Amino acid sequence: MKQIGRLLVAVGLSMAVGVVTNSALAQDAGMKRWTQGKGWGWVWGQEDEVGALNEMTDASRLAALRLATQGKTYDLGLPYARDSYRWAGHNPGEIISFRTPEGVARQRDLPFTTPEQGNTGHTRWHSSAMFISDNVATQIDGLAHITHGEDNHWYNGFKSDQWTGDFGVRKADVTTIPPIVARGVMIDVARQKGLDALPSNYEITVADLEAALQAQNMDITPGTVALIRTGTARFWGESGGDHAKIGEYDTAGIGLAAARWLVEQKGAIMVASDTSGLECLPPRPADSQAVGGSFNPVHVYLLVQQGVHIGEFHNLEGLSADRVYEFAYVATTNAIRGTVAGTALRPLALR
Amino acid sequence: MKQIGRLLVAVGLSMAVGVVTNSALAQDAGMKRWTQGKGWGWVWGQEDEVGALNEMTDASRLAALRLATQGKTYDLGLPYARDSYRWAGHNPGEIISFRTPEGVARQRDLPFTTPEQGNTGHTRWHSSAMFISDNVATQIDGLAHITHGEDNHWYNGFKSDQWTGDFGVRKADVTTIPPIVARGVMIDVARQKGLDALPSNYEITVADLEAALQAQNMDITPGTVALIRTGTARFWGESGGDHAKIGEYDTAGIGLAAARWLVEQKGAIMVASDTSGLECLPPRPADSQAVGGSFNPVHVYLLVQQGVHIGEFHNLEGLSADRVYEFAYVATTNAIRGTVAGTALRPLALR
Amino acid sequence: MKQIGRLLVAVGLSMAVGVVTNSALAQDAGMKRWTQGKGWGWVWGQEDEVGALNEMTDASRLAALRLATQGKTYDLGLPYARDSYRWAGHNPGEIISFRTPEGVARQRDLPFTTPEQGNTGHTRWHSSAMFISDNVATQIDGLAHITHGEDNHWYNGFKSDQWTGDFGVRKADVTTIPPIVARGVMIDVARQKGLDALPSNYEITVADLEAALQAQNMDITPGTVALIRTGTARFWGESGGDHAKIGEYDTAGIGLAAARWLVEQKGAIMVASDTSGLECLPPRPADSQAVGGSFNPVHVYLLVQQGVHIGEFHNLEGLSADRVYEFAYVATTNAIRGTVAGTALRPLALR
Amino acid sequence: MKQIGRLLVAVGLSMAVGVVTNSALAQDAGMKRWTQGKGWGWVWGQEDEVGALNEMTDASRLAALRLATQGKTYDLGLPYARDSYRWAGHNPGEIISFRTPEGVARQRDLPFTTPEQGNTGHTRWHSSAMFISDNVATQIDGLAHITHGEDNHWYNGFKSDQWTGDFGVRKADVTTIPPIVARGVMIDVARQKGLDALPSNYEITVADLEAALQAQNMDITPGTVALIRTGTARFWGESGGDHAKIGEYDTAGIGLAAARWLVEQKGAIMVASDTSGLECLPPRPADSQAVGGSFNPVHVYLLVQQGVHIGEFHNLEGLSADRVYEFAYVATTNAIRGTVAGTALRPLALR
Repeated sequence: MKQIGRLLVAVGLSMAVGVVTNSALAQDAGMKRWTQGKGWGWVWGQEDEVGALNEMTDASRLAALRLATQGKTYDLGLPYARDSYRWAGHNPGEIISFRTPEGVARQRDLPFTTPEQGNTGHTRWHSSAMFISDNVATQIDGLAHITHGEDNHWYNGFKSDQWTGDFGVRKADVTTIPPIVARGVMIDVARQKGLDALPSNYEITVADLEAALQAQNMDITPGTVALIRTGTARFWGESGGDHAKIGEYDTAGIGLAAARWLVEQKGAIMVASDTSGLECLPPRPADSQAVGGSFNPVHVYLLVQQGVHIGEFHNLEGLSADRVYEFAYVATTNAIRGTVAGTALRPLALR
Repeated sequence: MKQIGRLLVAVGLSMAVGVVTNSALAQDAGMKRWTQGKGWGWVWGQEDEVGALNEMTDASRLAALRLATQGKTYDLGLPYARDSYRWAGHNPGEIISFRTPEGVARQRDLPFTTPEQGNTGHTRWHSSAMFISDNVATQIDGLAHITHGEDNHWYNGFKSDQWTGDFGVRKADVTTIPPIVARGVMIDVARQKGLDALPSNYEITVADLEAALQAQNMDITPGTVALIRTGTARFWGESGGDHAKIGEYDTAGIGLAAARWLVEQKGAIMVASDTSGLECLPPRPADSQAVGGSFNPVHVYLLVQQGVHIGEFHNLEGLSADRVYEFAYVATTNAIRGTVAGTALRPLALR
Repeated sequence: MKQIGRLLVAVGLSMAVGVVTNSALAQDAGMKRWTQGKGWGWVWGQEDEVGALNEMTDASRLAALRLATQGKTYDLGLPYARDSYRWAGHNPGEIISFRTPEGVARQRDLPFTTPEQGNTGHTRWHSSAMFISDNVATQIDGLAHITHGEDNHWYNGFKSDQWTGDFGVRKADVTTIPPIVARGVMIDVARQKGLDALPSNYEITVADLEAALQAQNMDITPGTVALIRTGTARFWGESGGDHAKIGEYDTAGIGLAAARWLVEQKGAIMVASDTSGLECLPPRPADSQAVGGSFNPVHVYLLVQQGVHIGEFHNLEGLSADRVYEFAYVATTNAIRGTVAGTALRPLALR
Repeated sequence: MKQIGRLLVAVGLSMAVGVVTNSALAQDAGMKRWTQGKGWGWVWGQEDEVGALNEMTDASRLAALRLATQGKTYDLGLPYARDSYRWAGHNPGEIISFRTPEGVARQRDLPFTTPEQGNTGHTRWHSSAMFISDNVATQIDGLAHITHGEDNHWYNGFKSDQWTGDFGVRKADVTTIPPIVARGVMIDVARQKGLDALPSNYEITVADLEAALQAQNMDITPGTVALIRTGTARFWGESGGDHAKIGEYDTAGIGLAAARWLVEQKGAIMVASDTSGLECLPPRPADSQAVGGSFNPVHVYLLVQQGVHIGEFHNLEGLSADRVYEFAYVATTNAIRGTVAGTALRPLALR
């Protein structure tokens, strides 16, 4: 034990040369398909449903996990409840007590629950029925979430007239999203600006990202999950019930230039933030026009054109408070066929 | 980079001395409240909603993560769909296309989606509405799932007449389950028996667990998540649609003796398997009587009496195929207030 | 009682012509259990789940139907949609395309729908999944809807600790409400006041009812369904989407005095209006105190104490426009076990 | 046509006694668009969403109501519950206690429910949340329910690519179905055959209908709602829980010849039965081919081609027991926008 401990310390020391070492560790020796200045696009074959997350390898995951040097976990999930803030384009939700101990006792609808059938110790249970959207609280947008063009195509050219079904999408649903284990870097734009939270409709620029990264002495390297902090999650509270307050700050986010820089210049394999939609709303006219006219150009660019997943409503407050900027990002989505986003998730930052 | 790579190999080699080394690494120097021969019980204070998972520390988590030496991920989640096998005590489910690109285009109910308002590129989206149980596919039972006694109490004495609400439970819901990062050990009972899957109603005994562990040259150490393989998950397929086949094997599981051994003698902080309910069904009469008469004595023992979470329908087929028995187990539940089980999860075995 | 009976017969005899004749015909010769000055109460036996609607007889129904002399139907239902106004104490709703012709064609999940299996004519179908409350749009409150007292009893002494189940109530659910065929009288209070709609929080008094009835040359006779018009339904429009406007007027309604007068002096077997809750909100302090302190004293009085059903959000605009005050009221609730209100109904006024 | 009209008036005048008088009265003097030997088709204008029910007039309704000579009501609804038999193409359902008196008391989530805010009398309520199909228990299929052809058109040429929305259909949903008040005639085929219920897959022929009508001394006249009894509803019981039994008998029904005879020769404006789908299943090959190859040719014929609504799972047992064959049929569907069938209905036979 002691020997191993010392060995680990040695590894730690060797990594002490600076941030760059960690970055280098996290960065796979070579990306498979990423091209600087271009990013990805539909480069993974006609049947691919995974996109940029294909870049993950055993080596990159191992390197990412090695960033966890203290055994500390940051839960990036925001708790969802019936009153949680959500985007108007999704359905409302209810979490309802379905079976209750009292109900089981009163109804006696299942013979094995009765004392006569041996349940003299009165074992009973709770279960809940949920009516819920696949797009609430902390999410990872799947590549089928957004479509573009009159032909309603999504990533890799899958089209509605073939692949949209009655029970969700039939290509690139969330079950095709692999477990995500990657280097995570939090870019604390709000802190760098000296604000609790960025103002409404604020467009985060490349310069903002660069300034924050510089202040953090940190870089985005190819294969990194980039998490951008606006500060909006600080208003979530118990369950996101203060819609006015959250709504006030929720529209700050990156513009197309920052998205392109992260993907094409830096090789981020996923981009996340602490708002409901990552991008600055409403989009700048030039950004909208850059994809032919769109209310969500960054979504179109990342999901449809680049195959880069988007993380939403990630709670970055704990990381910010502790000034933790680099970590292993570990997330898996729900395993529900047909759904288009991982929902009510609790991604982890392992430190 | 190369040097670091070599260093890591060295670490890997140094850990090759034997299983015991890894185990020792994963095992925290000392448990906080566990007592051999007794386990836990309601030892964490009157307000506690966490139970045995309180044992996790930065050190234990770090040690667990260090078990991942190859960067390989095993997705332990079974995909859920509308036709998935589920226990009759829970509600059925549907995943339904809620917004579709074609629907958005036809309805024009949201002005910002229209070309006239600038959406000339026809950005649209998919989202899904789900009616779903909090107890389907791969689950982690929360401590409020099962109640016992005429007073309908659950772990730590929380009672229905105070804490069962209309919107789920109000104590020990899944949002109180911390991120689980712990040493995981898979006990491959089916393989040890030379079977694809254990037969119906088979009770896994302490001797079975010991034999399998010995064959694997592995031990359960305090703080470990124990995952027991019956082989049932091999019949899940695409979505658990073959109810007859799954139902045939789903009733194999541990009896009370094995549960007690795992908790009281070995200090397992969570016990999981690849069936819908972990325990052997129907329970042996003596097991039922041991908790006063119950159709689910192992649930009562683990969840209510010991505060030990239960993992269900964990897909252990990949681990078995690769003969991977020890790993970092990483799981987070959904972040949905009021619910009593993590549902449709994808826990990870990191190797 | 006998004297009144004789009086009623006399009235019947005297009214040899016109509408008045019909009124007399609609009025049963004698009520079974109603007592003037007292109304009903729990007079129908310990197992009764029907209440005042027990007064209906073949004769009363026939008399009511004879009020339809023109074959004209007034649809009293307000259409429900996802954006409809509803009381905050109920769950939101969605009506979602579940199976669609395009989905059936794309998914090919049901063999009989494929051309290969003979469906060369491409027969397909629409069906909808609904998540919905049992208390939306045009409703009839069942006798189990409201409870009162620390023992949570409803009509006839049924109590929660015995009869509230997981799947709704187990006594006096809507399936116990008989088909309602009775003389209906609309009391157009708004018109009598010369208003489009009564103002917010307006308490309709006995004097208001009497004045309106006098203006209409109409009376409430024992066995009548009384429908009171505030004018609120005029703001419903396509689907009740203008919450602000509806909410502004929705709080006008009867106070306890008017409710008692209708039941105890007049023998109304059901009382309805065009608002979400019939009664004036907030209740007058004296009304609240009259039932021991309540936010809904008229509900407590009618449903719990008298066994008189309440009709809500009945669209009385067509009747008002045509000045139709007397008609056959015909309504059946949904046939859904466990539910506590008929919902999204379309009661008829037959004239 | 005019001559027939006059004849009918004459008949009306002359028949001073007996059932026959009522029959003639129920039959409208003249149909608007019906042509013997052809029925209807898309004859009501391009925007029509009503179909054959357009034939109802004040006179026809009044005549129908006059068939109620005793004030007796027959509730034709079958009660729906979570375990009810339903067609596999629709979603399952749950009726769930949403707000309960105990939950309201425990949660104190609404201030006005607390004693501190004046609710010292402890007024509380039940409400239910439902996840439900628009096609369960006693139904009336709307004209948008079934589509046909590669272009997925329904009645009057409305097509999916324009009128199928995310929130149900946007043409000919159930809110466009007028209140149905018409002469109803029950054709008791099962009784005429001396059977409790017709056997599986039995095709009811024109000869069967004629024999039963003759035995009943009754005719279908233009404008009648025809209700055909197979006897299947006798197995429904409390809630349709015996799927095996119901399923055994549910496939008896009319073939295309009988449907055409009812519509084209007799002028039935709606056709109903006591099974889940009215028609004989599987359809005879010739029937399937008659509409180009279909698993539901009678549905295609009635709903799509003729604009004739279909009634399903109508409980005709009470009528049969009392040998009541002619009555006023009164039914209104749910008032829920987008839905394609009236569901969990309680149509009435007034006698």
